[in-house]
Amino acid sequence: MKFEIMRHRLLDGLNDVMKAISSKVTIPILTGIKLEVTEDGLRLTGSDSDITIQSFIKAEEDGDQVIRVIEEGSIVVPARMFNEIVRKLPTSDVEIEVKQNYHTYIHSGKSEFHIIGLDPSDYPMLPEIQDDRQFTIPADLLKSIVRETVFAVSPSENRPVLTGVHWQLKNSELVCVATDSHRLARRKVSLDQLPEGEFNVVIPGKSLTELSKIIGDTSELVHIAMTSQQVLFKTRSVLLFSRLLEGNYPDTSRLIPTEYKTTVTMNGKALFQAIDRASLLAREERNNIVRLSSLESNIVEISSSSPEIGEVEEEIQSISVEGEVIKISFSAKYMMDALKALEGHDVIIHFTGPMRPFIINSINDDAILQLIVPVRTY
Amino acid sequence: MKFEIMRHRLLDGLNDVMKAISSKVTIPILTGIKLEVTEDGLRLTGSDSDITIQSFIKAEEDGDQVIRVIEEGSIVVPARMFNEIVRKLPTSDVEIEVKQNYHTYIHSGKSEFHIIGLDPSDYPMLPEIQDDRQFTIPADLLKSIVRETVFAVSPSENRPVLTGVHWQLKNSELVCVATDSHRLARRKVSLDQLPEGEFNVVIPGKSLTELSKIIGDTSELVHIAMTSQQVLFKTRSVLLFSRLLEGNYPDTSRLIPTEYKTTVTMNGKALFQAIDRASLLAREERNNIVRLSSLESNIVEISSSSPEIGEVEEEIQSISVEGEVIKISFSAKYMMDALKALEGHDVIIHFTGPMRPFIINSINDDAILQLIVPVRTY
Repeated sequence: MKFEIMRHRLLDGLNDVMKAISSKVTIPILTGIKLEVTEDGLRLTGSDSDITIQSFIKAEEDGDQVIRVIEEGSIVVPARMFNEIVRKLPTSDVEIEVKQNYHTYIHSGKSEFHIIGLDPSDYPMLPEIQDDRQFTIPADLLKSIVRETVFAVSPSENRPVLTGVHWQLKNSELVCVATDSHRLARRKVSLDQLPEGEFNVVIPGKSLTELSKIIGDTSELVHIAMTSQQVLFKTRSVLLFSRLLEGNYPDTSRLIPTEYKTTVTMNGKALFQAIDRASLLAREERNNIVRLSSLESNIVEISSSSPEIGEVEEEIQSISVEGEVIKISFSAKYMMDALKALEGHDVIIHFTGPMRPFIINSINDDAILQLIVPVRTY
Repeated sequence: MKFEIMRHRLLDGLNDVMKAISSKVTIPILTGIKLEVTEDGLRLTGSDSDITIQSFIKAEEDGDQVIRVIEEGSIVVPARMFNEIVRKLPTSDVEIEVKQNYHTYIHSGKSEFHIIGLDPSDYPMLPEIQDDRQFTIPADLLKSIVRETVFAVSPSENRPVLTGVHWQLKNSELVCVATDSHRLARRKVSLDQLPEGEFNVVIPGKSLTELSKIIGDTSELVHIAMTSQQVLFKTRSVLLFSRLLEGNYPDTSRLIPTEYKTTVTMNGKALFQAIDRASLLAREERNNIVRLSSLESNIVEISSSSPEIGEVEEEIQSISVEGEVIKISFSAKYMMDALKALEGHDVIIHFTGPMRPFIINSINDDAILQLIVPVRTY
């Protein structure tokens, strides 16, 4: 194998595939990145066995020669070392050559590195995914869906299925739900182009987080293909494979209240900031609980206190307060996460009493629903 | 105590004094910041008992009222909590009021915090420093002196005196030296305005690092006053007191070679980058050693190798190589630190053989000297 490549294009590709490289991996070959060069270009693959990311750099792009292929071939190079070497090379071009016994030479200017690679035939094969259950979502919408749900997955492996986001396609609608059993985030999307039939999968939260880092904030379509054990996200230059989580996702629809006793409409950003301030005193006690109370004249009070430290109170003029008086306590963090997902828009909060879960929607759009289970303090 | 203050001015002052606050401090009152308000303004004090930083905010600045003093007084408030509260307040003005039993109320907009302060009379008194041994250095020059020396102090408490920088004033010249016994950094400064007599102190490296964070990159004069146990750095708005280190600083002048066998003149930036690259492979073995060899035609080769990982070689065209052929090994980190202190200027390196310390100067200016003890590998 021997080729020359524009250094910044190689770095872009490495940036993507490095996101799949984990220092915790136990399979030695997966500490490496696989390079495969053909006349068409260079394919980079990185994997931690749960997620695999593949980036393809075309030999020619818009008439420019990005890669000059002298001899086709493949190699696995130590991922972190190779990435750092390429990052620090002195010139804008890199020559990579593999000689006998996987000895790999990296030239740039007057700098010459010689590192010892691994046999590329030991690198795991990628799963084959048929295209028959494929559909597309624009990249920016996909990023939003992830951002609005993934924070609510459970961080604990006690119930592994809750560490993923449930994607369910039914009746021309994609419904994405994440819950850690103390709060829930749900996003509904109507898809133009639908795959055949229904599906029902749980995608690991970590895979979705990495996905949203490698796709751009553009309207480019991302192709999504499912099998029973894998999902593939595919853009023009990058592929992300993720395993799916096994097990049945709980039926969350029953958790969501449909009748309300109090409805508060208010500015989401003002509420976020008041809770952020109140949580300064709540945090000391490590429970991070703040109180919300409806007062007269559409005023909502946010407060918290710690016996040793002090207390804080803040009044917010809300747009409207309808129904019964409410006094309720909840995790400041959960509420701030939910409001962040709603991007500071005006919000409607529906309460069904101080001990019942409450829900938060954007005033403009009920495609996003956030649910929080309160904490007993009164 | 009761006053109103412009929030951003209070934040500036807190930024400075927070640098003296340590989470490791064992004296409870030092987890707090002391606020003292008089008609003239607000004085903030933070301390970890080694370093004390004081910031003064004038009540009136350039005709603008920064502070409205309603009642003079003082209080000690929990440092981190108070700093975070002020950072997150909703409006550009803050009102701070202390009522009975050190109960402290912080108002801003519709937000009201109530925290419990501490008795300001328990706060340690600052040392009194006479002005008789005072001199001045422009802030930007002082920052340079610190930057060029402090990195070479010893991180280990085995010989506490080596954790500081030795400042010696003699014959109208200030000489600052730091060494961890493997390398040494020395900066000489001719001072216009000199204190009476000689002095000879060791200032903790940490104090100098904090000092350089709070003084600006301007030509404003910093007043420096010494006692036998303390040093005070004083700008228009900030005071930094530091204890001095006890013990005799070793005589380092004998370490510095005065006769050379090889002299290499080369571009400091090119050398830095080549060593940075070579250290990628050196690092794996945790010794971080690179080799420098003089070849023919004024070429210098930088190289390193790790048996398991690979090797790297790079040739640099130097400006001149005079004297004997040299092959020498040293810590990549020490060399990069030294070259950073010389800011990438062209450098002259004087060698006296592969097992003797070598010195690095800027080609323009011999006020800065960097010395490195090599490592035996040949």
